[in-house]
Amino acid sequence: MSTIDFYFDFSSPYGFVAAMQIDAVAARTGRAVRWRPFLLGAIYRKVGQSPLEHPLKPGYVTEIDVPRLGRRLGLAIRVPADFPAHSLPAARAFYWIEATAPEKAPDFARAAYRRYWLDGKGTSDEEVALDVAVALGFDRDRVVQGLRDPSPKARLVDESEQAIARGVFGSPFLIVDDEPFWGSDRLDYIGAPEGTKPFHRPIS
Amino acid sequence: MSTIDFYFDFSSPYGFVAAMQIDAVAARTGRAVRWRPFLLGAIYRKVGQSPLEHPLKPGYVTEIDVPRLGRRLGLAIRVPADFPAHSLPAARAFYWIEATAPEKAPDFARAAYRRYWLDGKGTSDEEVALDVAVALGFDRDRVVQGLRDPSPKARLVDESEQAIARGVFGSPFLIVDDEPFWGSDRLDYIGAPEGTKPFHRPIS
Repeated sequence: MSTIDFYFDFSSPYGFVAAMQIDAVAARTGRAVRWRPFLLGAIYRKVGQSPLEHPLKPGYVTEIDVPRLGRRLGLAIRVPADFPAHSLPAARAFYWIEATAPEKAPDFARAAYRRYWLDGKGTSDEEVALDVAVALGFDRDRVVQGLRDPSPKARLVDESEQAIARGVFGSPFLIVDDEPFWGSDRLDYIGAPEGTKPFHRPIS
Repeated sequence: MSTIDFYFDFSSPYGFVAAMQIDAVAARTGRAVRWRPFLLGAIYRKVGQSPLEHPLKPGYVTEIDVPRLGRRLGLAIRVPADFPAHSLPAARAFYWIEATAPEKAPDFARAAYRRYWLDGKGTSDEEVALDVAVALGFDRDRVVQGLRDPSPKARLVDESEQAIARGVFGSPFLIVDDEPFWGSDRLDYIGAPEGTKPFHRPIS
């Protein structure tokens, strides 16, 4: 089955908005979703720029635009307590779960996103990621051990590097049949008549 | 009549996309449009950041996303020959026309935008802005003189500063009853049930 490669950072508000809609996009287009958490920080460090650097933009995003998007989707947004912060624990936990019980990895991603952006829990807080995993039936100590394991750490680094190599520069970023879609506003374009034309020039 | 304050830079591709749809938004919502060209460069200089700094983003915007948006709207996009460049001539000409024959200013804005983004003419090229004004019936020498006049220059500086003071940080940026909308993707939200709720916290 052809896929929607769904790159996102758990600390990204628009990534959350996309995550709440991606299953509907998959159902509409008859595709499977490959959930690919990555670290936006890895990209910004490489480029030397953060999208929140503009002094006016963070307030617009978290106080106006994302709550407004949420209301349109019936979601009462709460910004994570530590925003903006990294999302290492959830991203590593995702890849540990994917290696351990792959069918539960998307459930973990959806549940973690809801904890961060509906309950307002901190994305950098390991306890939050652990609680989400436990609620899905995982043994807490095993997950703690898994997060200390070098394998999910290496996997996350690898996925973030692959994302950069594929042209990903923000969250959410979707790739469908080699066509890139940046932002939750582009979900409707996937599979739409004017949204799936192949592009023959690679982004450069 | 209540208004839609429409801030845009002639060199902004998403500003163009919004300009091609703003009259329909005005008709749908029963509002008048206040066309407010400004210079994004003035904002970026103040903030020390340009949205095109990321090495992957300009290619995505001009080669993939904006052409795709254009196809959805039936517009064959051609990127201005000098992109990315300033748009001083058109912005100054707009305010000169607004002071001289205000009813023609929106026509100038639409026509100039089409020259830049459908015909691919350079936004920094004064001749292009003059051609557009002449096609609208203005005397070329009078416009040339107008562009040398201190008054439209001062007006443009003033409008750019007002934009910054109102929280504008990108193009297009729309303000409707004090509610800000950033980006062409937010046009549909204006006047929509979940898109016009007042926000009591100013953006900060």
